This record gives sequence, C-alpha cells and structure tokens, in this order.
Amino acid sequence: MKGLAMLGIGKIGWIEKEKPKCGPMDAIARPIALAPCTSDVHTVWEGALGERSNLILGHEAVGEIVEVGDMVKTFKPGDKVMVPAITPDWNSLEAQSGYPMHSGGMLGGWKFSNIKDGVFSEFFHVNDADGNLALLPEGMDPAEATMLSDMVPTGFHGSELAQVQFGDTVCVIGIGPVGLMAVAGAVLRGASYIYGVGSRPDCVKIAKEYGATDTINYKKGPIVDQVLEKTNGKGVDKVIVAGGDCDTFIDAVKMLKPGGSIGNINYLGSGDYVKIPRLDWGVGMGHKSICGGLMPAGRYRTERLASLMMTGRLDVSKLLTHRFEGFDKLEEALLLMKNKPADLIKPVITIKW
Amino acid sequence: MKGLAMLGIGKIGWIEKEKPKCGPMDAIARPIALAPCTSDVHTVWEGALGERSNLILGHEAVGEIVEVGDMVKTFKPGDKVMVPAITPDWNSLEAQSGYPMHSGGMLGGWKFSNIKDGVFSEFFHVNDADGNLALLPEGMDPAEATMLSDMVPTGFHGSELAQVQFGDTVCVIGIGPVGLMAVAGAVLRGASYIYGVGSRPDCVKIAKEYGATDTINYKKGPIVDQVLEKTNGKGVDKVIVAGGDCDTFIDAVKMLKPGGSIGNINYLGSGDYVKIPRLDWGVGMGHKSICGGLMPAGRYRTERLASLMMTGRLDVSKLLTHRFEGFDKLEEALLLMKNKPADLIKPVITIKW
Amino acid sequence: MKGLAMLGIGKIGWIEKEKPKCGPMDAIARPIALAPCTSDVHTVWEGALGERSNLILGHEAVGEIVEVGDMVKTFKPGDKVMVPAITPDWNSLEAQSGYPMHSGGMLGGWKFSNIKDGVFSEFFHVNDADGNLALLPEGMDPAEATMLSDMVPTGFHGSELAQVQFGDTVCVIGIGPVGLMAVAGAVLRGASYIYGVGSRPDCVKIAKEYGATDTINYKKGPIVDQVLEKTNGKGVDKVIVAGGDCDTFIDAVKMLKPGGSIGNINYLGSGDYVKIPRLDWGVGMGHKSICGGLMPAGRYRTERLASLMMTGRLDVSKLLTHRFEGFDKLEEALLLMKNKPADLIKPVITIKW
Amino acid sequence: MKGLAMLGIGKIGWIEKEKPKCGPMDAIARPIALAPCTSDVHTVWEGALGERSNLILGHEAVGEIVEVGDMVKTFKPGDKVMVPAITPDWNSLEAQSGYPMHSGGMLGGWKFSNIKDGVFSEFFHVNDADGNLALLPEGMDPAEATMLSDMVPTGFHGSELAQVQFGDTVCVIGIGPVGLMAVAGAVLRGASYIYGVGSRPDCVKIAKEYGATDTINYKKGPIVDQVLEKTNGKGVDKVIVAGGDCDTFIDAVKMLKPGGSIGNINYLGSGDYVKIPRLDWGVGMGHKSICGGLMPAGRYRTERLASLMMTGRLDVSKLLTHRFEGFDKLEEALLLMKNKPADLIKPVITIKW
Repeated sequence: MKGLAMLGIGKIGWIEKEKPKCGPMDAIARPIALAPCTSDVHTVWEGALGERSNLILGHEAVGEIVEVGDMVKTFKPGDKVMVPAITPDWNSLEAQSGYPMHSGGMLGGWKFSNIKDGVFSEFFHVNDADGNLALLPEGMDPAEATMLSDMVPTGFHGSELAQVQFGDTVCVIGIGPVGLMAVAGAVLRGASYIYGVGSRPDCVKIAKEYGATDTINYKKGPIVDQVLEKTNGKGVDKVIVAGGDCDTFIDAVKMLKPGGSIGNINYLGSGDYVKIPRLDWGVGMGHKSICGGLMPAGRYRTERLASLMMTGRLDVSKLLTHRFEGFDKLEEALLLMKNKPADLIKPVITIKW
Repeated sequence: MKGLAMLGIGKIGWIEKEKPKCGPMDAIARPIALAPCTSDVHTVWEGALGERSNLILGHEAVGEIVEVGDMVKTFKPGDKVMVPAITPDWNSLEAQSGYPMHSGGMLGGWKFSNIKDGVFSEFFHVNDADGNLALLPEGMDPAEATMLSDMVPTGFHGSELAQVQFGDTVCVIGIGPVGLMAVAGAVLRGASYIYGVGSRPDCVKIAKEYGATDTINYKKGPIVDQVLEKTNGKGVDKVIVAGGDCDTFIDAVKMLKPGGSIGNINYLGSGDYVKIPRLDWGVGMGHKSICGGLMPAGRYRTERLASLMMTGRLDVSKLLTHRFEGFDKLEEALLLMKNKPADLIKPVITIKW
Repeated sequence: MKGLAMLGIGKIGWIEKEKPKCGPMDAIARPIALAPCTSDVHTVWEGALGERSNLILGHEAVGEIVEVGDMVKTFKPGDKVMVPAITPDWNSLEAQSGYPMHSGGMLGGWKFSNIKDGVFSEFFHVNDADGNLALLPEGMDPAEATMLSDMVPTGFHGSELAQVQFGDTVCVIGIGPVGLMAVAGAVLRGASYIYGVGSRPDCVKIAKEYGATDTINYKKGPIVDQVLEKTNGKGVDKVIVAGGDCDTFIDAVKMLKPGGSIGNINYLGSGDYVKIPRLDWGVGMGHKSICGGLMPAGRYRTERLASLMMTGRLDVSKLLTHRFEGFDKLEEALLLMKNKPADLIKPVITIKW
Repeated sequence: MKGLAMLGIGKIGWIEKEKPKCGPMDAIARPIALAPCTSDVHTVWEGALGERSNLILGHEAVGEIVEVGDMVKTFKPGDKVMVPAITPDWNSLEAQSGYPMHSGGMLGGWKFSNIKDGVFSEFFHVNDADGNLALLPEGMDPAEATMLSDMVPTGFHGSELAQVQFGDTVCVIGIGPVGLMAVAGAVLRGASYIYGVGSRPDCVKIAKEYGATDTINYKKGPIVDQVLEKTNGKGVDKVIVAGGDCDTFIDAVKMLKPGGSIGNINYLGSGDYVKIPRLDWGVGMGHKSICGGLMPAGRYRTERLASLMMTGRLDVSKLLTHRFEGFDKLEEALLLMKNKPADLIKPVITIKW
C-alpha cells in the first residue's frame, strides 16, 4: 500500500509499505477524509520527535472499515468511523486512574505517526476498535468530522483543564485552529468575556465568530498590559494556552487572578524550562493552578463531541478553509500546512476509492 | 411607606409600614424594576410558608440606593443595583462551608418576603450590602436585570447541580421561566441534546429558541417512554427538575443512565416523601446522584451572571412577555402571575419615582 | 470440576461442572482463599436475583492462575492474584465515562455468581485479566487479601460517595463488615467524629477499634434523636448508609446538615421506593445530595487499596473472626454467614491444593 | 501596651504601642499561648516583606477575648479562642469565589505582622471576630491549639492542593513543622506510601511517627533518583512541597507520574522563576498539575481541624519540642526559632496574666 511518509528530518515522500495486520481487537480502515496538522509539520520539518525514517504521517482521519478482529463487537467492514488522534489501551492502569492518554507511560496513547504508522495511507490500523472508534453519525460531513480527531477534543480540553465556569473571563493565547476550538469550547462552558491573542486577520475574524468578545494583538504591546487594561487591572479568571512557547506562561500567570487556572493544550517544542514568575504566582501561595494535558479520546468522548456538532452547538466548517478531493492531493495539503498562507486555518481532503 | 403585602392566606393588599432602618453594613433602596414570581403566588394563595399577615411580598428587584451604613464600602446613594432574591450572611459557618444560601440554618439566606419584608415596597432593606448587591452594568435594561434576582441564578444552578458536561444529553422537566433558564444554562455548560418537558405552546416555542433540541408533551404519554424512545432506550445523562412534584423524581430516575445526576431547582410544595424508585436506582448502587439546592447568590455570582448578558451569551428578553410601567401596576402584574394567561412567561414593572 | 452452587431458591449443594474456557484476554484461576458474603445469603435464601439453578456462588477470592489467554501481558500461570468481586469491560462506553462497574448496563460489572459462575469452585474464570486482577503483594496473607474483593472497596466507597473531608462528622448506619470498613475508610478520609449505628456487641467493639468515636443503638430510641443529641441539634456533615432498608434514608436525610451528602453502599433488597422526606430535604433545596453506587474495581483500585494494608494504614484482620482450612469447609462457612452467630464478622477459608 | 516588634531588617525589640481599637465586628484579645514561626524569622532577618519598622510580630496564638464590637454575635469577653494566622474579609468577592485567603487581593487575608500588628503583644486586634475566631474546645491545651493557627491548616492544605486519594504514594519535600503536618494530613486523606525528604534526625524520627513510611536524605544523592528507586521507576502519585526553593519544582515534576499533582505550601522567598522542566512535564501535555496556595482559615475550618485533635486523629504535641512560660520568654523563643538547634521543631509559650 501507498502512504505519505516522513523520510527523514525535513523530507517527505510517498512510500510503499505492507498493509497492516489486524489483531483480534483491532480494525483496519481506509481513509475517506484526512486533515494534516501542525504537529505533522513539527514532526517532519522541526524533528520534534527526533529522527524517523519511512514513518507514515497523519493522525486526523475519518475512515471506512475494511477488516475487524474476532473480538470486535461494535463495528463491521463498511462502517464509516471517526478516528481520534489518540488511541489508548483502555484496560491499562493509567486509563483506570482517569488518564487513558498516558496509557503505558506519559503520552503513551499517542500512537499514530509516533510509535506506529499514521493515517496518511491507503490503509491504517486502529488498536482496540471498540474502545477507540466511533460511528460517523448519519448526515455528518466526513471532512468536518476530521476536526473531531484532534482540533475539537484538544481545543475543548483547554476549558476543562482551566476549569471554566459560568461567567468566567478567559484569555485564549493563540488562535490557530486549536485556539479557535478553545474559544468555541470556552463559550460552551459558560465563559463571558473571552480575549483571543493573535494577529492574523483571518484568525481574528473567525475567533470573533466563535465567540471571542475581543482580540489582542501582541504586535501592539505586551499582552499582559492589554489584558489588564481591558479588565480594569483585575486580570482574567482563566487562561487557555493554545500557542506560544515556554515563556508564554510568564504572561499567563501575570494576567491571572488568584484562584484562577491555566490550561495548556500547546505542544511545547523547545526550551528547558517552563517559567512561572515567583512573585506573580503569589510566592507559591496564590492558588494559580497550572495544568497541561494531551486530549482525552475514545469512543465515548468522540460520540459526545460529535453530538455537539449534530445539535448545531458547534460549527467546525469555519475551520476548513481549504478543501481538496483525492488521496493524491495529500502532499499538496500538507505542504500548505507547512507554508501557512494568510488565509489558511485547516486544509482537508476527501477521498473516494 | 407603601407596600404590596400578603394580608393573610389568599389575600393581598397595599399597606403602610415604616421605612426600614439601615444597619452599619446594610443598604436601603427604592425599586426601579420589579418582577413577581410564582413563589409569591405560592406564598399567598397556597400558604406555602404558612399563615402570615402584612408581610410585604416580592424578591425580584433592581433598585436605586438611598442610604448605606457606615461600613459599606462598595455602594453609595444613587447607585443602581441588582438585588438577588437570596441574601446570605457571608461570615456564617454555612457560607464558609460553601453553602451561603443556608446561612443560619437550612434556606436561611432566603429573607425577602419570608423572614422580613420583601421588595414590593417604596423602600426595602438589604443586609450586608457589600456582600449581596451588585452594580447594574452600564447599558443593562433594569427590567431585564430583574431576571438576575432569581430566574437566571436558579435556572443556571440546575446545570451545576446536575453537573452537565460537554456533550451531555439532558432532560429539563418543566419549562416555565426557571426551566427555560435551565435550558439556556445547560447549553452554556455544553449540553448537546436537550429535551424540554412541557405543554404550553409559548413555552415550547421559547424553549426551542433557548436551545431545547426537542420538547416532550406529558399529555401525549408517559414522559419516560418518550425520552427512552428519543434516546434509543439509553436514557439521558442528566436531568434538571424545574417543575412537577415529589413524584417527578420517579420519572427522573427512570430516564437517567447509571452514573448520571439529577439536579432539582423546583420548590416542592407538598407531599411527605420524594420517591426514588428502588430498582431503577440500581438497588441503591446505580450511581444516580440526586441533589437539589437553593440558588447561590451574592455580589460575585450576580456580577458573573450579568456578564453573560452583557456579552450576549444570554438573552433574557424572551422571558419578559408582559411589561408594565409604574409602581401602582404591581398588583395587576402579580395577579397576572396568579392567573397565568397562555402567553405569559414573566411580567415585569419599571418604576420612575 | 466441583463447585458450591445455588440449586434453587433456599437450596445450596456441591455440583460438578466443566472447567471454564479461557478467552484471549482472560485467566483461569484456582482459589487459595475464599470468603462468603451476605450477598451470597441474599442470593440463595432470599432469592434476591430471582430463581437460579446450578449457579456457582461466591465473589470474594484470592487465586492462583492456572491459565492465561494469548493477549494477557501482566500475569502468568503460578501467579497469586487478588480477585475483585466486580470485573468490568474496560473499553466500554460506561468505563470511559468513569463508571466501569456499570459496563454494558447498570451493575453490568457484577458478573460472578450473577451472570456467570462465581469463585466457589475448583477453577474460576476472570474476564480481562490485565484489567481486573492484581498480583498478591509479597507478604500479604491471602485470607486477609480476600477482604479486598468486596468488603474494603465497598466500605471505602462510602466515604467517596459521601465526599468525606477533613474534620467531617460522619454517621455510618450499619456496622457489619461493610460498615466497619466504611468507618475505617472515613478515618482515612479525614473524618473526626464518627457515629456507628448498630447493636451487636462485637460489632460495636470493633467499630470503636476502627475509629468510631461513639456508637448508637437503635434499640435505645430513634437514631435521629440520638444523633441530634450528640451534635447539639446540628446533625452530621455526612452519612454513609451501610445497612438498613429503603426507609433508612428518612433518618439519613433528617440527621444531615444542609450541604451534606449521603453515600449509600447498601444493597437495597426490597421495597418499591426509597423515601426522601420532603421538608427535611429542604423542600428540594437543602443541598443534601444522595448517591449510591456499586464498588469501583480493577487492577489499579485493588493495588491501591492493598497498598493501604501493606503500609499498615488498614488492618482487616479484625474482620476475620472465623478461619477455616480446606475447600470442603466452604459449605460450613457459608452456613455460618447465613446463621450469623453473635461473634461473627466474616468467615474465611484458605485452601492448599 | 508592650509588644515584640521588628524594628528594622535584622533587628527585633520590645516596644510600646497604643492598644488597638475594636470595630463593630471585631475583637480585642490577650494572648494566652503564642508560637513563633519560621515566617517571623524570614520577615525580620531576611527582610522577606521588605523594610518595616516597629511592626509587632507573630501570627500563631490562642487568646482570651477582652472586648468585642457591637455586631459580634458568637463571642464575649472572657472567651478563650483559637486565632488563625489568616483573617479574611468574608463578604469580599474573593471569599465568595472560594478563595477567602485572597480577599482584597492576592494573599490579602494575611494581615497579622504584615499589614497590621501581629499577636506578639499584650493585646491584639482581630477583624470580623464571628468569621475568624473559634472557641477553644473544652479540654484542649492552649499550647497545642496554637498549632491550629498555621502549622496544621497549612500542612493539611498540602494534601488538598495535591488532591491526595486512597492509596496514593506521596512525596513530602521538607519535614520541618509544616512538612510534618503535611505528612499527618496525607495519612488522613488516605495516602499509603509517604516519602519524607529531610535530613535532620529529629525530624526524620517524628516524620515516621506521623506516618512517613520512609524518608529520603538529599545529602545521600539526588532525591529524584532515590524516589524512582523506591517506586520501581514509576514515581509518585502526588508531591507536597513544604520546603526547598524555586528549583525544587524541577525535582517535584520529575518524580511525579502523569496525571499527578503537586501541592505547594512553601513560601518561596527568592528567585525570579519557578522552573518546570519541559520534557518531564510531558512537553506541556503530561497532566501534571501544579498548584500552591495560602492556608484556608476561618471559624469553620478552625473548628474542623480542632475536631481532629479532639478525636485523637491528630496529635500535635510531638511538634512542641520547647515549651516556655511567661510573656517575657517570647524573645528567647523567637531567637530559638532563628537559631534552630538540632532538636527544635516548634517552641511555644503559655502566658498567665
């Protein structure tokens, strides 16, 4: 089978590999919609996971099942399924402790294009199909459903980590696709004022459509100053970090009220230390809690987030700025993600076999 | 001063009383907007609180401060303020334990038209002004702001008690004004499918505008059957009880999935026992939790709920079906609440002194 | 193989059955320690699960593995393992939602001597061995370890359901073996005053050893009156229900402060409705939450509770009042549980094959 | 009146001041037991709060009330009371949001020997007596009760911040008096294995008496290595930081499992940034939450923690290694705290007027 792979740091290309084997609990699927992700770009061009060769990329997909193992109860060949980027082992100690995404070790639920081939392939393998896949709801556009692989669950996890409550004032740092979903998620957790930090005009426009009451352009001055000005010097109740780097937490802590929370959903690609400013953190006693976490996944979570789309609470179509048709357009779409033209939020490909 | 009072069970009338005295932490205010509540009707015509004579009614108000005590720091005469129905003692043991509404004993935070005169008066008294009042935000319609006294905080508490999460399927039993706010609150806590139970056409229409995906008419058959049919026999994740009586919990438990929660915000006016069906409650082991509670209040809560209106997340204007002008229209408005014409959700009065 | 079975309501006896088959994720084990439970008595002599014939009884066991399926990673033949009474399907929707004990439907995790043969047998079958078994820690007495099958996880769940916090005053209604573990669990969640309700002298004595500060004998007057007297009329912060029946909740609500919680761990065997007294429940608004639930199980939970025994935080040996040796003593032990002599808490059997 | 004051950085001395005035909600008390705290040492000899002159020191006290304001309902002259170190404004927005210790601004509840005179004085002032004081329970030793001002509520808050659960393996970094109370608190929240990090032989001995299963001496090698060795490379579930500095969090994150929590109760006196190691923090996605906070206080909290002493769950007498009699011994006791002899945990003074 054919797949679009990382050949080495900085290099991608189409390769041939053997079709994966299906274990008793597993499924093999063909992609019918695929979306490249900034993480794919990090993996290849920044070497974020280190050197890899012939690793098939991709972790955002909707597929059609072609084979299931003997023990699979929920799915059968022909079923169209949503495929989460993270596919835990559900009977692991970590899953039982409430953190399935860390099954088998920290971040261990992240398997696609990390510890096994990804979904940018004619066929891909899903461990524990019953636990990890979810039926594509009738009437849902497969292209839109790819946003349930990573963008929606990651963005919405921001509000969960930051524990957003009715009437919270929230700052979302970073309004790329994940940050935009963090904005949408904060609205659906009851935030009132939402400040989105970003500068690209298209992102600013869409952030407001998703519910940002205001946006903050870091090119116009320190973002902490701008947030404090907008909040009469009081700061915000919660911060969701969906962009930036290790130093972003300095700003996040400074703009946060005592008793507030910071939820990080940004992959921190470089730097030795995340920095927490001692004084603004209340000399250790300000009750400003900080938590970052990989997205929750699984059939249950995916079905529930899909239900928000089915009931019109969430419209992901605004994210899909570039649509392609045909498996062979995958490389073009991925390069688009790399080059990030001004009007790009997310590219998506639909495939007819 | 003049006030509209309960003269005895079944009887209301205008009376003269002395203007209340202002303690060091207190405020005296004049009403500039008032709304009658179904509880006023219960109090007078059903004798829900027992026999009372010359008790001034009312607990939904926006006012203008005319006097404050020496220790009041936040407010001064002339300030326009939102007045919550519940006014706790904030340094009580109960407040410190997280339940200010029960300060001094169960339901002890409920003072207006219960243990002291209510707000249907030329002047009314507010204990602990700093703790209990909130400035009317600039630009907010006082008539709309009266919904922050009781309807919004009570309705929204339903979702908190039921612990609504992203993607929950929720049944809201009762879609009067509190139930409608429960629907709106469930949307802002991330519910997907919301079934509103009610039969009045105007309520059904507005419930859908607030986000109910479907409504259930109890006149068309047992509501449990209808809910199970809509959910493929699975039931709902959460139930908010905003109407009915002690027997309503039988239905609520039956339609609830194991691991689900019931949040009650309905004043249960009669009956000896709330009934929990043993088998459907998993012989005591189904993890179907049941909690009911009086609305949280206070300056913090009121400001936050107001911020949801200021940012357009919540539009209470749909509730205000009948608007009056002038303090002397109060009796007419209250009788309207008693007689409940088909097109009534809430009457409201604005007053110019 | 030989097993001790329910032959029909009211009748037990030894039967011959085929050794169970081992699926790819499963294990087959021989018991090395077994304990009868009051539920076995309910099942047989009260017909609590309805008519059954030739159902092998028992759900409290420590075993030695004799066979494992191909996919089992953690265990191998010869391993000594703790076996929880509840054995969920860990990739089910219910487990993913946080309620593995209800996998596949309410109480669906309860399989032993319910929907399949129990552990009172020469060999027994465990579904999902990796998810459900835990290695017997070196040095732990297998007889004591049987208490980790049901008594400890159920008793300790009482404090979790009732959300016991530092300094809570707690009433534990029922001080049989589960109630005694509820007392021990409440101490380890930070309860201060603990009132145990019971009358048997041996239970009273052991309840105090486990940390009850006082006990209440229902034969000496209404328990609510006694609790109110001991708490200066204030009532308790939390109630754990580990005995009684549907009417016990009337007392539990009456003795509970507003803002308090009731955690039920008692199997309610009869009655149509659990009764919640309307007025004492604050006419639905007293924030007295009520939750009952089947014990959490799994490898993670079992290892953690075992660690409390290994570090001396919990001593279960006080429960084991009657010890037997030999598989053939099982019937005698079970009848002892049925007849409940005054000095019985729990009988246990150790087996050498 | 006479008081022991900070005269300037590095200098203490007895001064004369006017007796404080009593506001309508306040109380004036005489100390009957006092304990110096390491924070007093930081304040004076490290200038942790900056330059101050003639600031009366001290925040750990039991007192006898000599005067109360008109509005005080709970207390009267002659009452013996426990006095928390932190005395919030209970009707503030911050208290209503669940963080009374930050009333009026971050750490704003910390008033004694910070923004007003402390308790090392013939008379001291307590704001909001009803909210902040608690009656000394009959039979409780006033010397022991001084530990409820700061050591117990701060130490126990460590387990709350770290969210300790049944069976958690916990590392407590720092086993001075606060760390020892963190160990005792972790036991009463259900921790199993507890590793105390410290080197002073007396602290090591007492840590084990309070429930540490093992101690770790940082002089014998990197503490992370020692923790990983004791936990088979898995790390701990929770970390409580009760000592060290900004770099201590590097170790705390490294030794923590994904999904774990760090609770900080240590005043961080110097350094620009608390450092979170990026990779060990799971590149921002390891669900290792970090929270630090000032102790919760108030009448409710103090009564509850006192109830743990009254029921024998907690024995603070082990902390009181040096006991003095007479107000004039205060200076000697404070200097002892400064010089920290090998056998010192806490000095305490009792006073007869």
